[in-house]
Amino acid sequence: MMRSHYSGDVNAAAIDQEITVCGWVHRRRDHGGVIFIDLRDRSGLIQTVFDPDEAATFGAAEKLRNEYVIKATGRVRARPNGTVNKNLDSGEIEVYITDLDVLNASETPPLQLDETEGVGDAARLRYRYVELRKPRMQRHMQLRAQVTRAVRKSLDDLGFLDIETPILTRATPEGARDYLVPSRTQPGHFFALPQSPQLFKQLLMVSGMDRYYQIARCFRDEDLRADRQPEFTQIDIEASFVDADDIMELNERMIRQLFADVMGETLPDPFPRMAYVEAMRRFGSDKPDLRIDLELVDIADLVADAEFKVFSGPANSDSGRVAVLRVPGGASLTRKQIDDYTDFVGRYGAKGLAYVKIADVAAGREGMNSPILKFLSDDAVAGIVERTHAEDGDLLFFGADKTSVVNDALGALRVRLGHDLGRVADGWAPLWVVDWPMFEYDEATKRWYAAHHPFTAPAVDDPEALKAAPHEAMAKAYDMVLNGSEIGGGSVRIHSPAMQQAAFDVLGISREDAEEKFGFLLEALKFGAPPHAGIAFGLDRLVMLMAGADSIREVIAFPKTQTATDLLTGAPGVADTAQLRELGIRLRAQPKTEDTGE
Amino acid sequence: MMRSHYSGDVNAAAIDQEITVCGWVHRRRDHGGVIFIDLRDRSGLIQTVFDPDEAATFGAAEKLRNEYVIKATGRVRARPNGTVNKNLDSGEIEVYITDLDVLNASETPPLQLDETEGVGDAARLRYRYVELRKPRMQRHMQLRAQVTRAVRKSLDDLGFLDIETPILTRATPEGARDYLVPSRTQPGHFFALPQSPQLFKQLLMVSGMDRYYQIARCFRDEDLRADRQPEFTQIDIEASFVDADDIMELNERMIRQLFADVMGETLPDPFPRMAYVEAMRRFGSDKPDLRIDLELVDIADLVADAEFKVFSGPANSDSGRVAVLRVPGGASLTRKQIDDYTDFVGRYGAKGLAYVKIADVAAGREGMNSPILKFLSDDAVAGIVERTHAEDGDLLFFGADKTSVVNDALGALRVRLGHDLGRVADGWAPLWVVDWPMFEYDEATKRWYAAHHPFTAPAVDDPEALKAAPHEAMAKAYDMVLNGSEIGGGSVRIHSPAMQQAAFDVLGISREDAEEKFGFLLEALKFGAPPHAGIAFGLDRLVMLMAGADSIREVIAFPKTQTATDLLTGAPGVADTAQLRELGIRLRAQPKTEDTGE
Repeated sequence: MMRSHYSGDVNAAAIDQEITVCGWVHRRRDHGGVIFIDLRDRSGLIQTVFDPDEAATFGAAEKLRNEYVIKATGRVRARPNGTVNKNLDSGEIEVYITDLDVLNASETPPLQLDETEGVGDAARLRYRYVELRKPRMQRHMQLRAQVTRAVRKSLDDLGFLDIETPILTRATPEGARDYLVPSRTQPGHFFALPQSPQLFKQLLMVSGMDRYYQIARCFRDEDLRADRQPEFTQIDIEASFVDADDIMELNERMIRQLFADVMGETLPDPFPRMAYVEAMRRFGSDKPDLRIDLELVDIADLVADAEFKVFSGPANSDSGRVAVLRVPGGASLTRKQIDDYTDFVGRYGAKGLAYVKIADVAAGREGMNSPILKFLSDDAVAGIVERTHAEDGDLLFFGADKTSVVNDALGALRVRLGHDLGRVADGWAPLWVVDWPMFEYDEATKRWYAAHHPFTAPAVDDPEALKAAPHEAMAKAYDMVLNGSEIGGGSVRIHSPAMQQAAFDVLGISREDAEEKFGFLLEALKFGAPPHAGIAFGLDRLVMLMAGADSIREVIAFPKTQTATDLLTGAPGVADTAQLRELGIRLRAQPKTEDTGE
Repeated sequence: MMRSHYSGDVNAAAIDQEITVCGWVHRRRDHGGVIFIDLRDRSGLIQTVFDPDEAATFGAAEKLRNEYVIKATGRVRARPNGTVNKNLDSGEIEVYITDLDVLNASETPPLQLDETEGVGDAARLRYRYVELRKPRMQRHMQLRAQVTRAVRKSLDDLGFLDIETPILTRATPEGARDYLVPSRTQPGHFFALPQSPQLFKQLLMVSGMDRYYQIARCFRDEDLRADRQPEFTQIDIEASFVDADDIMELNERMIRQLFADVMGETLPDPFPRMAYVEAMRRFGSDKPDLRIDLELVDIADLVADAEFKVFSGPANSDSGRVAVLRVPGGASLTRKQIDDYTDFVGRYGAKGLAYVKIADVAAGREGMNSPILKFLSDDAVAGIVERTHAEDGDLLFFGADKTSVVNDALGALRVRLGHDLGRVADGWAPLWVVDWPMFEYDEATKRWYAAHHPFTAPAVDDPEALKAAPHEAMAKAYDMVLNGSEIGGGSVRIHSPAMQQAAFDVLGISREDAEEKFGFLLEALKFGAPPHAGIAFGLDRLVMLMAGADSIREVIAFPKTQTATDLLTGAPGVADTAQLRELGIRLRAQPKTEDTGE
């Protein structure tokens, strides 16, 4: 190896040793006739010193510029008094260089490595290899590797087998758009890239593999709203002869171990569990952030008789909800702030954001300030105060609409307020959300959809019972939530062919369609499928949370843009007409950049 | 968990314990009014006993058939004298079952789990989940997981970072056909699936990641001759500030550790190294199987003057070779065997297979038997005997043709003879093949091709020297060979933009083409690329060799057929016209199975 030490590993213990370091010229200072180069490698920085007394070496050092690649040999010595840098592992020492190799030059890099220097996302992606040199990105990549290592170790030790499943496969039933790959040997036919290894991991259970895992690449050709990538990575897990409790216990143990090993953090043991309906009622969300101490309170019964139709309408509707979010100390919010929050909930479909400011709770409505107060009876006001435990100086926000709108709007507002008002507790708040509904009814299409996926086992054992009452059916499903993000989800799977057929029947999947799309799974279930269950974690999001980053692009080495473009390599690119001909396809319109000869 | 024990973990130490086992009915025997079920799980078999005294349990057991899935609880007891099965880990005990749950039924499986039962490949692939239940396949999948675990541990411990690179990327320069993925957001443009992460791992070195690895899925849309799969897996490794020796030492240490940990086998330390030219000369192969003690011996100088044009022609040509393969004891080969070998070398382009049988070496040509003897001078015969150290009872096979034909034919014949004649030594014979040529000249297209890939560093440091004498250029490349299979290959990479341009120039890649295809790499090299080198191992083949299997399909959970079809899921399948329209493509001809509405 060219180097004897990584920069970050050299400290006062190495004083008087001769060492060789290799890396990049991070910063150069010329001071008092001497050249100081901070040399950077993966481990950090080290200060190297070039003295005119070493004529040849000094002469070479004079030509060094930022991001040149060098190999430097010299003796470690203590820094002079007053020049120690406490921020560096190697801050107590410097290296007096006696031999310098310039391994490569560098043009002025298109991005400054100084973190504070702002530059557009496009440049960061195009010159990703420079962006990745930044200490922040180095940390993220190292953290990600540590996470996968710790996860693998937990699962390996538990006897889970790392088994690879195909990337070139058949369309998967996850609901999103598949990426297609035209087949050359069967023109007119297409492989699909998997949205998850779901069916293959179930087949591995039918195969008797007993315990499977894979850190698996998955693909979705979706419009990349928010923080999505066309390819993403799942920690994919499945086991046989287990129930939901087994999978939950095993996986929360793995996550606890992960946080202990990699972050030195202690997570609760056990994780709290909460039913889906409770999560929606108290937090308006199926992935509540429990670090925030604000909760929704239902008041439909208190306002059902109000003349104020905005409240009494939803309060008297089966599909409506009226709820209050009490904001302790919120009476000091300004008009402008409240207007901002009103705009904010508008994005979630809320038509307004009623509020009451409470100056003096003992004074009743006289001690309150609100445009809606006049529409509420004394009893309603008293009841709301009592139920929300409102105190002097609080503010109450109201949501009254269809249940889904109230949940989305107040659920999001709760999180926003938690951050804005500094009400987010430190640390990690994991949670299992359980007791999910099996199906969701869509009014627009008048049909049932699988709340998870069509292979999720219901709580009932009788296929006829499932078909008779799909609206009541509960699923053996569980989501792991961490600080308000869903980081994993899974379920017990159906292992009986009759139950699988019943689920397809409820979902309106015809026998022919089921046979065409999932025939191989239905067939496999007939040949001795064991009871099995599993889970999948979103690795990108998990690492993002652990890194304290705000986008999964921060923890993916080579991410794509919102339009699924790789600005570094220029993918996607144009293809030869000859190759397309081999694949049995032609373009509907020619891209402008190429003469395809057609 | 439903089970208390895996079957294979129960032995005499558990006698009198109550245990619960879960798995499949492997075999049922009814004997003396008692039912014996061999229950199978991932770990092996265990004998369960159902006695009519346990009426309910016995009644349920009477309905059991092969491959039913059961959970059985009972007390462990010693088997009666004379019924111990030494072949099973659990062979000294049986379980007297008092509680039975039938977890799932099974129709008669389409494959017999009995290993000796022959069935076509198509059925094995279609019902892969049954095939995978066989103990052989269970072993293979477990071995593969052990191998990846051991490899990861070695690399993790050495500070290599597991970093994921994109699957949806730009066409890679490996030379084989790419799989294409049409882009929806940029109609008319295509992603390519990577043939290797080569360029990304080089970019990671430019990023300062220093040590990278990935167990990476790679893709080649090739005609699947021999034992190839459209998707395969590489152990992909790259490091900075290292030279070829560093990479070789580090990786042979990893492979030694792997064989020690997983197989309990000791590999040589260090691995022998052999120059490419020596391997071709002695073994006619760049991946010689050193377990076979047969070697090629050059005799062009001895037959250059022979009237026999078949020999003297190639002997006097720069591009020809005349060589002998001495087969100890081969004089006993029959006419038919020799005819078979003649056909065999014909597949490699040889126009015949001259031979000499030696009965009595002391008698000179009188003691020999051969159709070609009459064409050779006494001196030639004596020289050949001397140089090959031929003895009584030996046979000499001759190859005389273009060098590549002689190497291919005699190289393959050597391996075939080694196996046929039992001359393959036990154990493992690893080897580094080094000192490769940088370029290969193709007479047909009159141009140079990269012997490895266009990013391989030459032995010379001067770009002008490379361009001046490409025929002499040696590459800093190395292949790891094991028992006659190439299991890994790599090189030092070019890190200087000028040298990379020189390599492209020799290869006849125009500046425009280079810019279009590899512009991002050329650009990255300008911003401080460190010296770097790497290697990639073919995981499928490595595991296949370790398993003693004869096809990589044996160590891949869900392989495809020779026409790249997945018989289990039916991939590739047809696609919706609407989806193709979104992708901006249309079919050249409609597949018969679908009405696409066009």
